[in-house]
Amino acid sequence: MMNRYLIWLNWPEPPFRLNASDLNEFRSLVKGEVVAVRSERAFLKELQSATHAVCWEFRKEWFAKAPRLRVLATPGAGRELLPTDDELPDGVRKVHGEFHGAIMSETVIAYMLAWCRGLFTAYDWQKEGGQDDLWRRADFGNYCYSLAGTKAVILGYGNIGRTTGKKLKALGVSVTGIRRRNIAELPDAVSDADWLICVLPSDTGTDNMVDGRLLRRMKKSAVIVNVGRGNAIDEAALADALRMRRIAAAFLDVFKKEPLTQESPLAADVPGLFRYPHGSAFSPEYLKLFFRELAVHGFLSE
Amino acid sequence: MMNRYLIWLNWPEPPFRLNASDLNEFRSLVKGEVVAVRSERAFLKELQSATHAVCWEFRKEWFAKAPRLRVLATPGAGRELLPTDDELPDGVRKVHGEFHGAIMSETVIAYMLAWCRGLFTAYDWQKEGGQDDLWRRADFGNYCYSLAGTKAVILGYGNIGRTTGKKLKALGVSVTGIRRRNIAELPDAVSDADWLICVLPSDTGTDNMVDGRLLRRMKKSAVIVNVGRGNAIDEAALADALRMRRIAAAFLDVFKKEPLTQESPLAADVPGLFRYPHGSAFSPEYLKLFFRELAVHGFLSE
Repeated sequence: MMNRYLIWLNWPEPPFRLNASDLNEFRSLVKGEVVAVRSERAFLKELQSATHAVCWEFRKEWFAKAPRLRVLATPGAGRELLPTDDELPDGVRKVHGEFHGAIMSETVIAYMLAWCRGLFTAYDWQKEGGQDDLWRRADFGNYCYSLAGTKAVILGYGNIGRTTGKKLKALGVSVTGIRRRNIAELPDAVSDADWLICVLPSDTGTDNMVDGRLLRRMKKSAVIVNVGRGNAIDEAALADALRMRRIAAAFLDVFKKEPLTQESPLAADVPGLFRYPHGSAFSPEYLKLFFRELAVHGFLSE
Repeated sequence: MMNRYLIWLNWPEPPFRLNASDLNEFRSLVKGEVVAVRSERAFLKELQSATHAVCWEFRKEWFAKAPRLRVLATPGAGRELLPTDDELPDGVRKVHGEFHGAIMSETVIAYMLAWCRGLFTAYDWQKEGGQDDLWRRADFGNYCYSLAGTKAVILGYGNIGRTTGKKLKALGVSVTGIRRRNIAELPDAVSDADWLICVLPSDTGTDNMVDGRLLRRMKKSAVIVNVGRGNAIDEAALADALRMRRIAAAFLDVFKKEPLTQESPLAADVPGLFRYPHGSAFSPEYLKLFFRELAVHGFLSE
């Protein structure tokens, strides 16, 4: 019998919500019938005949309604999105997207390059100077340096960390990846790093891994980038370090509590703090990259 | 007899002016005596015994004062900085720096990534939102896209263009290089390009190569980056195209007249216009990269 692909990908943020272009991409990658639905109710009804289900979330009790299901796939990396391995019926394969690094690495490097090439300074000066001061060149060079030749520590060296590391190496950056097995090297590694890039998941004892003690080991010119999860950073300690100019800047895509609220020490107007709204993977390519990854790994032809 | 290296590198901008760290770098690369001077007068006096002269400018009449000179080197790419080939005495070799692409390519890519990852939007929102609106996530995705998979046309495909092209390819960008021999391809090439990157020199009939006609062929989402020379762009036509939203943005490091003045159509507050003060090569590494290039090419051991 033919495969029947059931897609339910609704989400408030546009890049994560299936549109016509994404659906066309999916259709181009498979043989068989493709059904796209927009509600849980329609999803549960169509599950009866689906061989493949592609969705943001799936509850274990739904397996009872899915007798033909062989592949259950979600774009998200979060393990809470799908049932556990133990809950999986025989013959059903579970797939999490691992394509995020392709987009997130661009956000990380965007920020690193924008910082060391002085783009925010040039932008501020253009706005502040207005029509009175069009050419502030004399000391602009003090805000610029080269990315090539700098040292980056990537804390969390899975798919996203390694994809970022590979691109950084192509740009001449020296990269040290820290994962569980060499976590003891972290304090020494950060002490001469120009960048500390955090790509940690939230689920593995990573709370406050970047704390006041680690921050005090860093260079004054060092910059922190966090596109993993907010729990990895002691937010009060980071705000302090920025205020005291003990590190130069922090680019944060994620926070301990999201949406960010007034209670966070990082909600204030802290010097060198750049906030991004948990969008490091935002791209019109998001679902297309996921679909292509499924196809490349053979999950769509199973 | 031992080589005698004479260095005179003064310039108003800090990255282009020899400092102690640059001088140490130079000393580490050579055997022989190194003399650093800060004035034309001292330079002309020391020329008498110099085998190598490293300077920003050199006038042809100075050769008469330089009987031992074998290598005359300048960091600058501008042909006007040194005497012409015809004016060169026998046995003197002339060297222009060709290392600029290493730094300039970072500035180009910094801007491209900052644009497509929405960094300026996030920065604006952080400032505008202040304490009242800390989490503007819902439609932030509309300002983000992936660099990988986009198409760049690089107009001027010498050292700087090729270095930039190589890095862009490593980031997944499809690159078309345009040089004199394939200039006829330019109008077609820009018509489906996401980026037009100008790296043209000023001395070769490049005036207004990017004019209203070429701009009208570009996509509405396209972005122009100019780190070559300002004469390559028709400034009034570019300001028009930005105002009419016929292209999305322009990042300009260089202008027809520098310092930029009120007379330029690009001095106004034009939407999508990002100005940079002719600093795409600014870096504390500038002179060090030049010295290393001289060493690598064997010019310091001649």
